[in-house]
Formats: sequence, C-alpha cells, structure tokens
Amino acid sequence: MGKLSETIAAISTPLGEGGISVIRISGKDAFRITGKLFSKTKEGTTGLDFSEVQSHTIHFGYLISDGLVIDEVLISVFKNPNSYTGEDVIEISSHGGVLVTQKVLSAVIRSGAIHAEPGEFTKRAFLNGRIDLSQAEAVADLIKAKTDEAHNSSIKQLEGSLSGFINGIREEIIKVTALVELELDFAEEDVEFTKKDELRNKCREIIHNLVEIISSYISGKVIRDGVNVVIAGKPNSGKSSLFNALLKSDRAIVSDISGTTRDYLEESFIIDGILFNLTDTAGLRLTEDIIETEGIKRANEKIRNADLVIYLIDSSGGKNELDSGLKYFNENLNTKNSIPVFTKSDISSAEFKKLNYKEKILAINLNDQKTLSFLKKGMVDRVSSSVPVVQSGKIILTNLRHKICLEETVASLKNVIISIEKNMSGEFISVDLRNAMKHLGEITGEVTNDEILNYIFSKFCIGK
Amino acid sequence: MGKLSETIAAISTPLGEGGISVIRISGKDAFRITGKLFSKTKEGTTGLDFSEVQSHTIHFGYLISDGLVIDEVLISVFKNPNSYTGEDVIEISSHGGVLVTQKVLSAVIRSGAIHAEPGEFTKRAFLNGRIDLSQAEAVADLIKAKTDEAHNSSIKQLEGSLSGFINGIREEIIKVTALVELELDFAEEDVEFTKKDELRNKCREIIHNLVEIISSYISGKVIRDGVNVVIAGKPNSGKSSLFNALLKSDRAIVSDISGTTRDYLEESFIIDGILFNLTDTAGLRLTEDIIETEGIKRANEKIRNADLVIYLIDSSGGKNELDSGLKYFNENLNTKNSIPVFTKSDISSAEFKKLNYKEKILAINLNDQKTLSFLKKGMVDRVSSSVPVVQSGKIILTNLRHKICLEETVASLKNVIISIEKNMSGEFISVDLRNAMKHLGEITGEVTNDEILNYIFSKFCIGK
Repeated sequence: MGKLSETIAAISTPLGEGGISVIRISGKDAFRITGKLFSKTKEGTTGLDFSEVQSHTIHFGYLISDGLVIDEVLISVFKNPNSYTGEDVIEISSHGGVLVTQKVLSAVIRSGAIHAEPGEFTKRAFLNGRIDLSQAEAVADLIKAKTDEAHNSSIKQLEGSLSGFINGIREEIIKVTALVELELDFAEEDVEFTKKDELRNKCREIIHNLVEIISSYISGKVIRDGVNVVIAGKPNSGKSSLFNALLKSDRAIVSDISGTTRDYLEESFIIDGILFNLTDTAGLRLTEDIIETEGIKRANEKIRNADLVIYLIDSSGGKNELDSGLKYFNENLNTKNSIPVFTKSDISSAEFKKLNYKEKILAINLNDQKTLSFLKKGMVDRVSSSVPVVQSGKIILTNLRHKICLEETVASLKNVIISIEKNMSGEFISVDLRNAMKHLGEITGEVTNDEILNYIFSKFCIGK
Repeated sequence: MGKLSETIAAISTPLGEGGISVIRISGKDAFRITGKLFSKTKEGTTGLDFSEVQSHTIHFGYLISDGLVIDEVLISVFKNPNSYTGEDVIEISSHGGVLVTQKVLSAVIRSGAIHAEPGEFTKRAFLNGRIDLSQAEAVADLIKAKTDEAHNSSIKQLEGSLSGFINGIREEIIKVTALVELELDFAEEDVEFTKKDELRNKCREIIHNLVEIISSYISGKVIRDGVNVVIAGKPNSGKSSLFNALLKSDRAIVSDISGTTRDYLEESFIIDGILFNLTDTAGLRLTEDIIETEGIKRANEKIRNADLVIYLIDSSGGKNELDSGLKYFNENLNTKNSIPVFTKSDISSAEFKKLNYKEKILAINLNDQKTLSFLKKGMVDRVSSSVPVVQSGKIILTNLRHKICLEETVASLKNVIISIEKNMSGEFISVDLRNAMKHLGEITGEVTNDEILNYIFSKFCIGK
C-alpha cells in the first residue's frame, strides 16, 4: 500500500454500466489534483482551488484532460478531518460507463495520484483514528451481507457494539492489572490473599463472558457466510434439475444427457433468513472424458468442504437402485451433515412407507412443490439443530480473527488463575494480564502489525 | 413511466459489490421522503427538513427505518432547477453492498417514492428542458462507449454539437419557409420566379449538407456499436483457441474434444481503436447431441448477422482438407465480408506459396504471434475499406434514429424542389418545408411523441 503521504485514487462504485460512477481521491494533494482537471465551463480553463471552497459542497463542471472534455461531472469536497479517511477527500461523480469512468481515473492518476489498493481508503480511516479495526472489518461485512441477519450484525459492529464490549472488558482487565501491579510494590503487606481471591473471581467472570461470546461464533459464521450446500449424486440423478428448482431459474443447463454439467455451478439463496450457498456438482462417476474427470475431482473436493450434502438417489430405477444408492450414502457420506433424497419420485407415501427404510429419507418430485418444501424445511432444520440460538440484542461473533483473539485472551486469563492458584509471584500474573489485554487490543486494532492489517484490508474491494 | 407529479427513485450505480452505491431520488417529495428517514445521530430522531439546507451540500448521518439503522450515509442535496432532472434531487451515498443498497431503496419506496423506469431521470431532464433529445441519447451512448472514438463522439453530442448543426439547418429552413409563406400572401407579384430559383438552390444546398452527414453513419455505426465478427469453421478447427488468443484470456474452455463449445461466447476487444465484438460459435456439423444442434442453429444465425466472418480451415489435414474447406467457404460464405484462415499452420511461407491458391488466404499458427498480427491487420483492413474515412472535427452520425429523421428531411426537401420545378402552388411547397422542419425537430425532440420517447428511454439503464 502507498504511504500516508501519497494521494490515492480508485473507482469506488462497482464496475459495469450504470447511471453514476464515483472516483474517490484521498490525501494531501486531492484538491490540487482535482483542480488541475476541473473547469466550470466546457471551454474554460482548469485550475479551481478546491481548498478555498467549503467542505461538504458539490460543484458541477467539466473534467478536461489534454484539452479534451472527458465528462460532465459533480465534484464533492470533504475537508480533513471530516471525511471518510480523515484526509482531504474528493469524490468525482461521472456518467456511469466503464470507459468514461476509467478515463476519469486515468486522468487523476496522470495528475499525480497513485492507484489505491483494495481497502486502502478504509485502512486510512483506521490509521487516522476515524474508526477502529473491528469497525473497518464491519464495513467489508456490510458490503458482502446477503441476509437481514448479516446486515444487522455488521451494522451493529460498524456502530461499535463489539468495540464497546471489548473496551469494557479491557477496562476491567486494566483495573485488575493496576491492582496487581500496585501490589507488586507493596508485596510485603497482608492484603495479598483477599486481593488474589478477588482477582481470581474477576478473571473467572471475564472468562465466562468471553466464552459466551465465543460460542456465538457458530451462529455468526452461518449469519455472515451462510451454509455451504453441495448437491451430489450419480449422473442423471436430477442434480441440475433440483439446483434449478431451488433457485427457480435456469442458471444450470439441464438436459437428458449424462455429463451435461461439466463445471460446478454455485448460487446462493435464502430460506427462512438463512443463506445457503448451493453447489451443483458434476456426475460422480468415472469417465473417459477428461473434462468430466476434472469436474468430478472438483466435486469431491466440494463435498469434503461442505457444511451440508444433499445426496440424490434416482428412485425411478426401482428398489435395487435405491438400496445400492443408500448403501453408497451410508458408507461414504453419513459421517457428514448430509441428507439422502430420493428423486424423480412419484411413489405414494403409503408405498414409500412400505419400503420401510430405517434412515430418515426425503422423497421429492419436482412436479410436486410440496415435496420441495419438505426438502427446504429439512435443510433449515439441519442448520438450526447444529447452530445455537442467539438471543436478539446480544453481540454475535461473525469473524474468525476475533474468535481467535478472544480464545487467546481466555487462555491468558486462565494462566492468571493458574498462577494465582500456584501462588506464583505478581510478575507472572502481570505478564498474563498484559497478554490478555494485547489480544483484546488486536480486535479493535489498538495493538496491531502490518501483517494483520494487510491481511484484513486485502479482502476489501478496490475503492473502499 | 410515472407522471411528473410523482417522486421517483432508483439505484444509480451498477449492481454489485463496491465501495459506494448511490440511490437517486427526484421529484417534489424528494426532500420530505429523505428527511423522514435521516438522522444526524444514530440514536437521534429522523425528520430533517432538507428544503431548508443549501443546494449542492452534503450531509452525513444515518438512514433509519422502523427504528433500525440501515446504513451510515451521505446525503447530497440538489434544489430545482439546478439538478440533473431540473427537479429537487437527493442522492444517497451508501456502503456499496447489494443488500444494503436495496434496503436503502426499499426504505425510500416505502416512504413514498415510486420505482424509476429505465432512463426516467434523463427523460425528466429532457421534459424539464435541461437537455434536448439528442443530448439525452448521447448520455446513453456515453455510458456504453467502449472506444476512444465512441467516447469522443458521444461527449460532443452531449455538449450539443449535433443539436447545434440541426438547429442551424432548421433556422435556414425557417427563413425559407417565411419567404414562401410571405409569397403566398402576395402571389400576384412578379418576384415569384427569382424567389423560386433562390429557394431551389437553398434546398439543394441543405440537401447536400444533410447527405454528407448521413453518409457518416456507416462510420458512426462502427464507432458506436463496433464490428460484429464471428469465428466459424468445422469442429476442432481451432475456433476457441483463436478466440482466446485474440482475447488473450481463458474466457472459452479449450479442449481437444470436438463439441466443447456448446453455447456461443461473446467478448469485445479493440484493435487500432476499432471495437470488434467477437463470437465463438459451436462446431458447424450435424450431430446427434441435442445441445450441440441447438448451438449450431444459433451459430448459423450469428453468421447471417455478422459484419465479418473469420472462417477457419484446419491445415493439419493436408491439401484435400484445405481444398474442401475452401470449397465450402467459396460456396457458402464468399458473399459475406469474410476471411478464410488456415489454422494450426506450421507450413513455411514458401510451401504455402506453392499451394498456389487464387484466394487471399491467411495462414495462422497460434505459436507464432506474427501470424496472429496478420489476421488482426486483415480484420482492420476489411473494416477500413468498407467504411469511409471521416475528417476529425466533423459531426459523425452514430444513431439510426437520427439517420432516418435526416433521410426523411431530405425526402421532404426533394419534394420541395419537385414542386418548384412542376410550378406547383406555394401551399404544397410550404407543407413540405414544414415536414422537413418536423423531421429535424424529431432529432432534438422539439417535435416528439410518447412512442418515440418510450423507445429511446427504455434502452437506458435503470437509475439514469
């Protein structure tokens, strides 16, 4: 990433054709660079001094480069520190074409800005103290949110709910640490034992609160990333048809020919507020076709990494086919969170009962919407039963990095308790308390390093 | 489309994940609707009166609906008539996620705005007299521009170059019409004959200017829409490989198995400033495979509509294969603007000369970049030879609608000349002159109807 002394620029709106696109510029030269390119009239001379206009104002005019008008634009002016990054910021609003937007950015770069890296504006907002690190991460989550729950949890985190909780815990630890370190100076006095008891209880209380938050991560992960579902089964067992039925679209090409789906297809959809990321896999068979072999390799990989597997067995082949399909399922997939499903099923429920399978099997018939609803309900039930219910209003941990930091905080606090119980000297206790504070500080970014920052911001989109 | 009395809203940035998205609201209730949802603090009450803030100012705060914060936003305020549409306009700049952007729009709709149709903001700009119709069309062209030429011609049209030309011609016709209609009142006087001569010469002069502009349309179409190129040839003749080589990407799946490309693939790229829209077709053979048969049907359709066909003949099959390939080409494609190309060619140029084909054939070998350059040069030459060169600075007609209006103007002016030569009464001449003015007025929108407007604006993106 560029140094803070450099002025960065990027297209901040999604790529593609639209009515408006926004090119954002941040840094000490943002006003000068924009002024060089801007004129209030199309024949006029450029060189408006944006440092002399008021902050939070908008200016209509023409962006001119090498004597040619690139576009009619609106210039929004934000003076430091009252901007997204805390620096001088310009947002150029241009006509939303791909080429015209790139031409505007190119002109800005030629005038002295450098290309912003992914997340670099938000990184600057963090480095300039506008937001803390967990809020910066909430920005990325908010942009990627696909369900109401994901949206709500990221908005709360952006507003500082997690930061508030962390800072509260951190203050408690600071108080405790002060007591311990005070005691180090008066080690001879006899207040020691009651203080140690008090300290141990305090640590237990904090651990209890942290463990509760940590346990919300299983729900948090489902909220943020959704459930990865793979539809698997032998060729021609109806995988693509089910995929389409679930998505209510024609995303996958469906045909009667085995091996139609060569690549795997992925789409997301929402049932009862839960995001399911659905993968349609290539037929699970050995084949001479080199494209399909590659497809099957990738399909097996997908199954291994899935949160939920829907395994389809073609029921039109009769009882023998069903038995062999179930045998394969039981031997290969029953250890995973997986659902066996009989497809192409026009068996009546009475007939189905007679088959007397001990497994809980769904039989679906795509011509019968009700059977599809059963499957959807089954999918939701599987998720709900493995994910703890989180009380509304409570903080939910959605970020693996935060979970790891909290686990390390808990580990440090447990060391404090062990040291107390082993009656070790105050120095040991103090070191572990300071470690606990460090791990908490990593969440909000009070303690950080370049590696962590680069990891976090590289996952942002460009222009944010 | 909505009535002008209604307040419209839409997402104006392209769909997708980005740093910023903009929701635009236009109409008399834009300020009231936004105020209902906006609060300067996250716990605060909504209800800021945006009609009391200054135009062209930006306001940071929270968008709140049903007590829940939807997002941190920036509100840009544009007071009529100084806005894109000429009405009161609000632009809400929110975090650029798909869901969060839709939530903002939903809240705005629930508060009283209606969904804007494609192009409805620009239509309002036209109806409110902010821009004329040819400028509105230039906005759509600017957004879709993919080459520098397309960008320049749409920017000039947006700035009013075409409108200026049309209005100039229109004024000349108005003057002439005034003369004719004055004469109708003094029909007995003997100035008649010299006036008629003068009138005829004036019409001829205008026709001459219009025909020149009309003839620029062939270039204009290439500038605006590019050249549609289809790569055709028997299965396994190297179509997908050439497609990829031209695009320098792996857009098409390439394999050694015939029939890999089932659907057709389209991509655009630019050589020497000319936009080529390239289509890779399914193998042109009869097949039992129903997916491929559908693919071939679509491929033949693509060939029929192409501006340029590159027909590949696999040269690794020896002289017989080459001869039969060329025979097919000469019988089926030589009437089109098409180029026969020998692929997989590692024949030396000396050997190639010996084959002594009378046709101008290119031999390409994808391992030899030079042979690919020859093909690219051949493609550019074909386009250049069939497209007249337009002097820079001249107006270029890029829009079929404008061309038709100008042709109708010319037809009306020719009728004027015929009427003069047939010594017909001034009334006939006057009617044709008025028709000519009407057709010119249709270009800039001085004369228009709902059908034309709906046709034009339906081709815009939503939010523009």
